[in-house]
Amino acid sequence: MTTPPDPALARAIELSIEGVDQNLGGPFGAVITRNGEVVAVGQNRVTSSADPTAHAEIVAIRAACETLGTHDLSGCEIFSSCEPCPMCLAAIHWARLDRLTFAAGREDAAAAGFDDELLYRELVLPLDGRTMPTEQRNRDAALDAFRRWREKADRIEY
Amino acid sequence: MTTPPDPALARAIELSIEGVDQNLGGPFGAVITRNGEVVAVGQNRVTSSADPTAHAEIVAIRAACETLGTHDLSGCEIFSSCEPCPMCLAAIHWARLDRLTFAAGREDAAAAGFDDELLYRELVLPLDGRTMPTEQRNRDAALDAFRRWREKADRIEY
Repeated sequence: MTTPPDPALARAIELSIEGVDQNLGGPFGAVITRNGEVVAVGQNRVTSSADPTAHAEIVAIRAACETLGTHDLSGCEIFSSCEPCPMCLAAIHWARLDRLTFAAGREDAAAAGFDDELLYRELVLPLDGRTMPTEQRNRDAALDAFRRWREKADRIEY
Repeated sequence: MTTPPDPALARAIELSIEGVDQNLGGPFGAVITRNGEVVAVGQNRVTSSADPTAHAEIVAIRAACETLGTHDLSGCEIFSSCEPCPMCLAAIHWARLDRLTFAAGREDAAAAGFDDELLYRELVLPLDGRTMPTEQRNRDAALDAFRRWREKADRIEY
């Protein structure tokens, strides 16, 4: 007998199936909770909203932030039907979520034709070894913005 | 004598400085071009829009997709005032941009108090070694969505 999914994880999985059936985008769903209550949900909407960043976790994070009126989701946790891709995993960090629970793995996403595993490998390659042609130039010209940021008395850190 | 920045990179750097001065968010700017023409620009708006995903590159990608009416930015390239964080670098891949040029590096972002370098290290750790508490469970329950996706005759891949 297997452990039944946490209700929020079960809901994320339901959302992933509904998303396929409703032609929203890829087979991915996510739920954000606070103190066990659902704050926001998300489904992959890449193709239906013409937005390559509209992965389930990003959609859920943006919805939770809108609902709560803050960019800081400390005190909330996220449940995803599949291991987040690097974009979504980094977004989970930037949102300061407390905890991540997921069901399927990146290898399952890869088997279904998604680039998650490839991206995890690509991100740690040196610039000149990546599939994405990448160049760094004019570094010095860009440092003024950082100087201004550090010297800005009323900056809002995040 | 140093090479002057490409005009699109110079504009991304200007946007990063304007963003600080106008209290939009962190010191980051981005520009997306197609055939040398600017398609969209972005500035970090994390704090001003209460959206932790509103990094300059994400804002620019979403704007370019809205302008062009597609989730696929093949044929476009992106210029960023700073090396993209893992969230933005993965988004650049998902958007199928052709090329990335950036000025400041992740070490410059880290020196200004941003987590980019930390995130690059975190993403490749095993689940149980991460600062973010992370758990995989109920994998089998999530595989049905992938089966439905693969069997869906009218699926739109991305």
